[in-house]
Amino acid sequence: MIPTITAFERSPDGGNGLARDMRVRWALEEVGQPYRARLLSFEAMKQPAHLALHPFGQIPTYEADGLALFESGAIVLHIAERHGGLLPGDAKARARAIAWMFAALDTVEPPIFERAIATVLERDAPWYAQRLQVLDDRIQQRLASLSRRLGRADWLDGPFSAGDLLMVTVLRRLNGSDMLDAYPNLAAYIARGQARPAYRRAFDAQRAAFNAAPKG
Amino acid sequence: MIPTITAFERSPDGGNGLARDMRVRWALEEVGQPYRARLLSFEAMKQPAHLALHPFGQIPTYEADGLALFESGAIVLHIAERHGGLLPGDAKARARAIAWMFAALDTVEPPIFERAIATVLERDAPWYAQRLQVLDDRIQQRLASLSRRLGRADWLDGPFSAGDLLMVTVLRRLNGSDMLDAYPNLAAYIARGQARPAYRRAFDAQRAAFNAAPKG
Repeated sequence: MIPTITAFERSPDGGNGLARDMRVRWALEEVGQPYRARLLSFEAMKQPAHLALHPFGQIPTYEADGLALFESGAIVLHIAERHGGLLPGDAKARARAIAWMFAALDTVEPPIFERAIATVLERDAPWYAQRLQVLDDRIQQRLASLSRRLGRADWLDGPFSAGDLLMVTVLRRLNGSDMLDAYPNLAAYIARGQARPAYRRAFDAQRAAFNAAPKG
Repeated sequence: MIPTITAFERSPDGGNGLARDMRVRWALEEVGQPYRARLLSFEAMKQPAHLALHPFGQIPTYEADGLALFESGAIVLHIAERHGGLLPGDAKARARAIAWMFAALDTVEPPIFERAIATVLERDAPWYAQRLQVLDDRIQQRLASLSRRLGRADWLDGPFSAGDLLMVTVLRRLNGSDMLDAYPNLAAYIARGQARPAYRRAFDAQRAAFNAAPKG
């Protein structure tokens, strides 16, 4: 059965693949699993039909074979557990790859996402410059640690895994800022992820959805 | 082999069980797995020996049988996968319980944790009152969604699971604020988690560690 995911009808990022359906699309492409995307307006996301699928009224969701899931991290893990290619076979290496999934979402993403929110919600606030400095310092701490651990390796722990997939989607939000300038190995890591054919297919699919959306 | 976890030698929360080792202690107590806690000073956490275990220089870590893990969510999942009692046996119910683990850490915790950071870092800033209002609004949104989904149930999806364990540890940070006043079912849910014998044992263990710490 072909899974159905949900995504924004008109992503606020302008089709740049920063919305969280991108992670799920990329994972599905890595394992060669076709899928359908059901696109939702912001209004539809707050309706009972969608809230039954996603208690917080967000995207993405995943439905297949009578199972309904929400949370991009959980969906990527579910896909990785059911198909080869995103988690190592060795039990210890598998547990470590899952640790990197949590590290991406719980340790690296929060300050990066807070910064993205601040640039929208607090741009005109008198404290904006100072707040940005606080957030940038927190992000730099994380980047320094991550860069030191990655070193000269291609991926975080052995072959490409779901941990790398999530980490690249998290770090991509810094593309175009100067925050990666001090960490050329992280910039190369992001580029390496984005160069994967499965990434390209996922990116093109979400961009096509954005381009086809009714103009607001 | 008895696993070893790391925790703060002197937790900044004063032994109130808000540090992230509490989640791991609680999970180990739920499944009846004895463990050792290795306590670290803030200085020791930044040394190469600990950075080899935890790339971001934090606690907790988990070591057993030649496996070393970091990230509290990943450690709890690893424990839940190896022992009965924290994840349902049915595959679909298991995937949904894991979705609640990610929801706790990725959707509910970020605004709650940001608020905790702000109360320390921004308390004296001229914008503090306004910032707090923005953060409180974000938290209230999450609480309203969670309360609606929980309804009159004891736990989020069937029997107590690792998803509930993480969610309770996340929500506990709001104890003593007035933010739970509008959601008596969430206050009761937290109390239900805290009343579990395994929770009590875990709480007492981290409190004992705090009380035994050298006074700073």
